[in-house]
This record gives sequence, C-alpha cells and structure tokens, in this order.
Amino acid sequence: MYLARRGHSGPDGIEPRIVVTDDPGKGWVDVRRWQALSLERRGATPSGARRLAAAFVPGSMSAALAEGEAFLDVARAAIAGERESIDDAQFLAALDPSGYRDHMTFEGHFSYGYEWQGLTVPQVMYEMPISYFGNPLAFYGPNDEIPWPHYSKRLDYELELGIVIGRPGRDLTPETALDHVVGYTILNDCSARDIQQREMKGGLGPSKGKHFACVAGPYLTTPDSLSKSGLKMQAWVNGERTCEATSAEMMWSVAEVVAWASQSEWLEPGMLLGSGTCNGGCALEIQRDLAPGDLIELEIEGLGRTRNRYGVPPTSGWWPDAKRSRR
Amino acid sequence: MYLARRGHSGPDGIEPRIVVTDDPGKGWVDVRRWQALSLERRGATPSGARRLAAAFVPGSMSAALAEGEAFLDVARAAIAGERESIDDAQFLAALDPSGYRDHMTFEGHFSYGYEWQGLTVPQVMYEMPISYFGNPLAFYGPNDEIPWPHYSKRLDYELELGIVIGRPGRDLTPETALDHVVGYTILNDCSARDIQQREMKGGLGPSKGKHFACVAGPYLTTPDSLSKSGLKMQAWVNGERTCEATSAEMMWSVAEVVAWASQSEWLEPGMLLGSGTCNGGCALEIQRDLAPGDLIELEIEGLGRTRNRYGVPPTSGWWPDAKRSRR
Repeated sequence: MYLARRGHSGPDGIEPRIVVTDDPGKGWVDVRRWQALSLERRGATPSGARRLAAAFVPGSMSAALAEGEAFLDVARAAIAGERESIDDAQFLAALDPSGYRDHMTFEGHFSYGYEWQGLTVPQVMYEMPISYFGNPLAFYGPNDEIPWPHYSKRLDYELELGIVIGRPGRDLTPETALDHVVGYTILNDCSARDIQQREMKGGLGPSKGKHFACVAGPYLTTPDSLSKSGLKMQAWVNGERTCEATSAEMMWSVAEVVAWASQSEWLEPGMLLGSGTCNGGCALEIQRDLAPGDLIELEIEGLGRTRNRYGVPPTSGWWPDAKRSRR
Repeated sequence: MYLARRGHSGPDGIEPRIVVTDDPGKGWVDVRRWQALSLERRGATPSGARRLAAAFVPGSMSAALAEGEAFLDVARAAIAGERESIDDAQFLAALDPSGYRDHMTFEGHFSYGYEWQGLTVPQVMYEMPISYFGNPLAFYGPNDEIPWPHYSKRLDYELELGIVIGRPGRDLTPETALDHVVGYTILNDCSARDIQQREMKGGLGPSKGKHFACVAGPYLTTPDSLSKSGLKMQAWVNGERTCEATSAEMMWSVAEVVAWASQSEWLEPGMLLGSGTCNGGCALEIQRDLAPGDLIELEIEGLGRTRNRYGVPPTSGWWPDAKRSRR
C-alpha cells in the first residue's frame, strides 16, 4: 500500500487529503471520499457519512496513523475505489510528522563529516546510533521549492531513508521494533553546512543548520509493498547523478534504530526516524557546492522520487551581535 | 494572569482542564466550566454551551494558545468566576508544548559544562544562542515522580526559565520578539549526565541524555503579572538549598533567544524555549550526585515552585551491541 497527501483547493484554502493506491503509476483514490460513499451505501445520510469520514480520515497523516488499525483498514479498503491521476505539483509532504529524530548510521557519511571538520571519528558512533531531534514543522512536499535561509551560503541535501512509526511503543528491542513501523519514505534532511559546522562546535544541535527545511515523500510505502530490504538510493543534482548507495550499508539496522529511539521515551504514530545520510548522499561529501535554483532529485527503490529546487536567499535578515565573556 | 492544568478524574480517565487565577494562593477557576455557564446566561442550551466551551477551552494548553486572543480573552474573563483550591498532586504539566527547544544563555553554567568535559569553551557560544530540540512528549507535572532511565547512573536536574510562545512568528527581531511571548514557567530539563557526555562527543543531540523527562509548571505567568525582569531562581535538593541565581544573568536576553529561534523557521503557539540552566542550577555544577528518591524543588520568582521526586531505575533494559568499523 502507498499513502500520500494531495493538496486540494477549497473554500478555506489548500485542504490536505489522504490518497491511497497499490500502484503509484496507476492513479490514486481519495480515502475520505471513498469512505463517505461506502458509509452511504450502508445507510448513512450524506451529511452523516461526511462527518464520520472526516473524523476517520483527517488531513494530517500523523493524526490518521494515530487511529491505528482503524485508519489502516479504511485506507486498504479504499484501494478498490475509483482512481484519478494527480499532478506532481499537488503532492504535499506525505507525512506531517508528530516528531522527527535523525540518526547517524552510514559510516562512510559520518566519517567524512567528522574528517571534514578536522576531527577524528568519535568512538561513540560505534557504541550507539547517535541522534538529534529535527523540526517537525518544516516539512515540504516532494516537488516544493525549498527556501534558502538568509544566514547560509552553503546549502546541501541529505538523502536518507525515512522510517515512519505507526504504533506507540516504549523500551522496544530490535526483535519487537519492526512491529511499530508502518512504512518508509524518502527523507531529504536539508542542511546549511556553514552554520551547522559552527553550531556543532558547541556540541549540541544542530539547529539553524537543519531546522529550516526537510522533505518527506512523495508517499509512504508500507513494508508489504517492499519486496526486499536493501533499497537502492540515488541522487541527482541538475540531472547529473551524484550518488548511488543502498540502505543495506546502514551500520545500525532499522530495528536497532527504532529500539534505540524508544528507550525511556514514547514513540508515537506519525514520528519520523531518519537513517542519516547514506554514503555519498550529500553535496558536501562529493565536494560540490550548490547554488540557488539547483534541482535536487532523490530516489529510493520502491519509495518514488522527490524533485525539489532550492530557492533564492533573501538579501537580508537579523543576526545577533556577539557577546563578550564576563568571566 | 496565571494559567495551569488540573487533572480531573472522569469516565475516560484523567481529563486535563485549564484553570486560571489572578492569585495562585487564592484558588483557581475552571475556564471551560466558567465559559459554559457564561454562554448559558446568554441563551445557550446546556448542551450547546458545553459543546462550544469544549471547542474554546481544550485540555491541551498548546491547542488553547493556538486560538490566539480568542482563548486569552475567555481565560481572562474567567478570573471573575468561582474559585476552588486544587491539591498539588492534581496539577499536570502547565504546558504540553507544541515544540521544545533549549538554549545556552548562562555563561557560568555552560562554561562549567565544557570544562567538566575537559574542553575549552567554544567561541561560538558568544556568537549565537546555541540550541537543540528537546522532546515535547516527555513533560511531567510539577509534583510528579520522574522515571529514572535504565541506562543512566547519573541523573540531574536543570533549573531554567521557560519562555512560552503565544503567537506565530518567523524571522523576528529582538524589537518584535516579546510580542510573541505569552508567558513564563519553571522548566526542569532533566538530564542523564553519563550518557549525555558520551552523546555529545558525537557533536549532536543530546538525545538519550535529555529526552526522557522535563517538568513545566506549576503554571504559566503572563508578563503583566511579573513586576520585574530579573527573577530570582532557586533550587533545593532534599530541602537543602543548592542554587541562588537570577534570570538577569542571562547572557542572551529573552528577546534575542526568541528572535534567534525564529530565524527561517516558524514559532508556533505553545512552543517552549528554555533559557538553559542558570548559573549553579544543576547538581553537576555543585559536584553533587543525586540518588533515586531525591526530592528536587525549583522556584522562580513569580512562577511558583516545582517539587519532583526522582524514581527508582528499572533493573534491566535493552542496550545495543557495539559495532566494528568496516573502513
């Protein structure tokens, strides 16, 4: 099953609608509309059917996933409904995550990152899947333009496998963790390298180096629609292929990442866990600089392709004055 | 105005109810109940009044703040309602934050932290208010017991000023930032020092060193109820005073922190921004070890006092096996 969100123009502006299919090449079914029609066939009035369908199928994917099997059953049944094709530009972020944490699991990528900063790779990277929380409010759709922050001259993309939680869990083990994963999506953890490097000298974050934008989409693929576990991961900059990796290169497995994330804290439906950038999956690692207007395409086998152009930075913005030490 | 949340036992379990007062020593008014009665006096049926009051006054403080002036007007009017006293044990986290980011603004604290890790204080600390995102799902009430994670032997508290956003904002300046602050609360950013130190060697996060618990409460105080800006901040461990600081010692002002947080990203109502630990505001800084069962009391002038006991750690939990480098 493939789940996505379409932006529909309505009287209140753009209304997100969840759509489903068993083949993204063959069109999509509007899940709420399908359920309302289905309720009517079972005796509901049109207004009763709309009201209940709106409760079952909200515009937020996280809110829908929070209903557990109740939502997934409806979505799966809706695959039988009438399909329509959707223009690329109408796809919203497949997930409006209820939380977002990113990890470091690809040794080639993180080793390059530390060495670029003139550091040796810390031993802790081999002891636990180190992570930080990203910004769940800054998710863009798979074809949106990404705003370039005023404070950065060095924007980058990061090609990651996005792991989507579908069932609450806490203190999981790798043996039980995969029961809590509802699907996978392409994740672009957009990065502003210049400020990220400065922030990381403080040892925490990064924040401004990361929180301005992520991309999730074009859809979530449930595990039963993935025929294999090592998924090919590719990137293109302005049409030129810049990365060919596979999720099989993850040093920490998906099950270990989920179990780790759940230790002493709740994972909630709609949470997104990032694999970290795959080996070679960013411009930094291939010594390439991006410019405003560059087109970034990311593809993961079975998960589709995102196509995002990076915007033009504003010419000004606030910046703090440095402080003097009072010690 | 002081806003808090009370846990009320109902047919569906504990129901959070927003309460308000102009003097925490003189009892609280249930805002939803007050509004329903007020609507009835203006011709609403009891069920119509309840329905509208439930929409206006949800159990979530973040959802309420997302209504802007509409909610604040109702809350302020409700101060005239009938008061009742509330047992300490009934107070929930005053805020269920829509997002949580913590900063480093107290030079004494962060300098100690770096030096404890054998590091010199990075210059970037004086260049920008460095921050990380914490876990908005792990907020405990002002009198709750704090679960001790299985993976830590060294738990700590952190006494911080919590800044609560009440109005959406992006790319603010210090001149406009304070218009977006709806109030302040005591924040205990609970910390597991042993794993935090290991995580920070990776340069990002911290995650497991922080995400298991925070405390916000006992209430939010709106700026008009604070008579001054330099607020005394105190901590006690098992009744012994361990900290006496003031928010006037912040190196980055509240306005600068809010403006910084808003650069190239949206601040949403209900977001919590932490000041970072005040000087001397944690056990680490005073070379003290905490033990399960210790009582942590935190007080900030005008914001009340929190009283949290630290629990007993579970005897076991999952831990990942270390990986070998494949390079």
